[in-house]
Amino acid sequence: MRILVLGGDGYLGWPTAMYLSARDHDVAVLDNFAKRAWERELRAQPLMPVRELTERVRIWREVTDRQIASFIGDLCDYEFVRSVLHEFRPDAIVHYGEQPSAPFSMIDQHRCVMTQVNNISGTLNVLWAMREHVPAAHLVKLGTMGEYGTPNIDIEEGFIEIEHKGRKDILPYPKQAGSFYHLSKVHDSNNIMFVCKVWKLRSTDLNQGVVYGVATDESERHEGLATSFHYDEVFGTALNRFCVQAVAGIPLTVYGKGGQTRGFLNIRDTLRCVELAILNPPPAGEYRAFNQFTEMFNVLQLAKTVQQQARKLGLQVDINHLPNPRVEAEEHYYNPRHDRLLQLGLQPRLLSDELVESMLVTIRKHAGRIHHEVVLPRVKWAGVLETKRQDGASS
Amino acid sequence: MRILVLGGDGYLGWPTAMYLSARDHDVAVLDNFAKRAWERELRAQPLMPVRELTERVRIWREVTDRQIASFIGDLCDYEFVRSVLHEFRPDAIVHYGEQPSAPFSMIDQHRCVMTQVNNISGTLNVLWAMREHVPAAHLVKLGTMGEYGTPNIDIEEGFIEIEHKGRKDILPYPKQAGSFYHLSKVHDSNNIMFVCKVWKLRSTDLNQGVVYGVATDESERHEGLATSFHYDEVFGTALNRFCVQAVAGIPLTVYGKGGQTRGFLNIRDTLRCVELAILNPPPAGEYRAFNQFTEMFNVLQLAKTVQQQARKLGLQVDINHLPNPRVEAEEHYYNPRHDRLLQLGLQPRLLSDELVESMLVTIRKHAGRIHHEVVLPRVKWAGVLETKRQDGASS
Repeated sequence: MRILVLGGDGYLGWPTAMYLSARDHDVAVLDNFAKRAWERELRAQPLMPVRELTERVRIWREVTDRQIASFIGDLCDYEFVRSVLHEFRPDAIVHYGEQPSAPFSMIDQHRCVMTQVNNISGTLNVLWAMREHVPAAHLVKLGTMGEYGTPNIDIEEGFIEIEHKGRKDILPYPKQAGSFYHLSKVHDSNNIMFVCKVWKLRSTDLNQGVVYGVATDESERHEGLATSFHYDEVFGTALNRFCVQAVAGIPLTVYGKGGQTRGFLNIRDTLRCVELAILNPPPAGEYRAFNQFTEMFNVLQLAKTVQQQARKLGLQVDINHLPNPRVEAEEHYYNPRHDRLLQLGLQPRLLSDELVESMLVTIRKHAGRIHHEVVLPRVKWAGVLETKRQDGASS
Repeated sequence: MRILVLGGDGYLGWPTAMYLSARDHDVAVLDNFAKRAWERELRAQPLMPVRELTERVRIWREVTDRQIASFIGDLCDYEFVRSVLHEFRPDAIVHYGEQPSAPFSMIDQHRCVMTQVNNISGTLNVLWAMREHVPAAHLVKLGTMGEYGTPNIDIEEGFIEIEHKGRKDILPYPKQAGSFYHLSKVHDSNNIMFVCKVWKLRSTDLNQGVVYGVATDESERHEGLATSFHYDEVFGTALNRFCVQAVAGIPLTVYGKGGQTRGFLNIRDTLRCVELAILNPPPAGEYRAFNQFTEMFNVLQLAKTVQQQARKLGLQVDINHLPNPRVEAEEHYYNPRHDRLLQLGLQPRLLSDELVESMLVTIRKHAGRIHHEVVLPRVKWAGVLETKRQDGASS
């Protein structure tokens, strides 16, 4: 199949492109390197050196004799998006091409508005260009489990049958996103659902949990194929960040009580989930959502797991309960379904002691590149502007 | 109270400003006249001449000896929004300042993206500036009943208690918006709900039905105070458009079967609803939604009502069932609640034969300004780009 990976320079985009290329698909990547600029702004460099995209494409060709095409440009530039879809004519489009960080979107007005405008208009442009040039293509869109929040009822996959006053309907599952970034994904989901209805496009929304892992089978084939692994408070996610903290001798930063439960998955399973979605497209006109994670942990459990494995390597690791910078429930009911990808054949690689150990070992090789000052949370959901307030309203 | 009306040059914004000014509030209007530019683009002029905003403010002062302040600028310009809130320090902000048309948002990629970017970033800017300068102020936001779509269960006011697999929660009511414009209001609602939670702002989301009416008590005090009344396919709404068609001798344009049922209200009730929301603010941290309409009609019923009243004035009027340009159910269950504004004291002015007759009489005075060519629907939800399609996908 012809597959276009949007955001193909990123933590998941690049490994996805290699994974699909290795499986005989005709793959192209698209990126504008916006995330590299945001990293520089925040002095949040990836742990391992990340080669330029053209360089990684070249190394991939040397190692595998396979070609990945690349398109450099901005999804917010509609003429660019049209020209790419017209030229490459993908059968499937995997869409990671968005500002991916919740804390980033909460920093200030500029980052908030930029995140929503960037993510929403990029996705709308893809939809309009699909309609014009490849209306039969399948949009595989990366959403997030964070779109749902933590309701007190089971979370279904995208839709829920509601019985109300003696009548029934199957309706979009109510969303309670927890940051401007997560909200941008909710907005995308609503826009995509609508165009599937009125334009008969087809799309799979992958509501993904928190991804962990340093490497994939393909990235391990050459050090120059490494992906962009973050451990900072803005782009780093819980388990990845904890592993780096353990190696660096920084107490693990658990926000609040640590009872926040989330779905998690191995980066290798992300690639397989995307592949399963691509290989099993919905019919024209269908918008569907899969909840994409393999198991659940609360944050404190994760910290303790990392602590134990680190001890085996002789690392002494403390756990620090910091005041929670986010506004979120720290103890809550959480029971999201995640059946649909299993039904398609996903065989989860669950988090093992060995995996955590291997992450610690890999990270230790790059310990000299760890910058301590980017680990602690500075972006606060409720409090950033406190000092500028001029009256007594609570925040 | 100090009340800032965003979009104060528009069909509802200007009458709202006069209404509140007449009731001793200290009122300011804000507008960037974007809608006047869009009208020109589409050659869709209002039925009655609409004076410049500064001129209407001057006339209002002459007629009533009351001052309405005006701020001219764009809500998408954050520094402008901040400066206005810092200077005027409103207790309440009534937010009509958005691109208000569903067909406009469906014309092409440019209008679609512009509508969502304009509406979402304008509203985000208002929220950030409120947080910084007036965190205790009350945002009265105009939403739309169109956010809900036409589910097969009763529509509640913003939230619904869902019982699911033996557990319960009160969650945001699922939204199924029917255009990129309606979606922009859903996105706004989600953003506002979130900031009320994390920043403890307060807001009332008025999910308004279709508004009809040519005049208000205040606009009738001087012909120079007339509001911007539209009858074209893009900015005109069903009843207003039908009255103009009846006067112009154009068959009434019912889309499809005409069984589409919607909530409606008199423009005078819009003003009263906004006032009731302002006078009864929610506590800090609360986001609430009121369904703002007074009665329901289907489109064919409305057309027949106009036809009957027009006959009494000697006008021969036909009803034309056009192919529906929208993608929507033409027969459906529809039972939205609308209790909360009634509980606050709203006394509805229901649609009467006399009102329709008086609309027809008023419109007849301006019959010479009716442009026939802007009445028929040209914007199609599914079909605009049909001719450019290059493969056989259905639309």
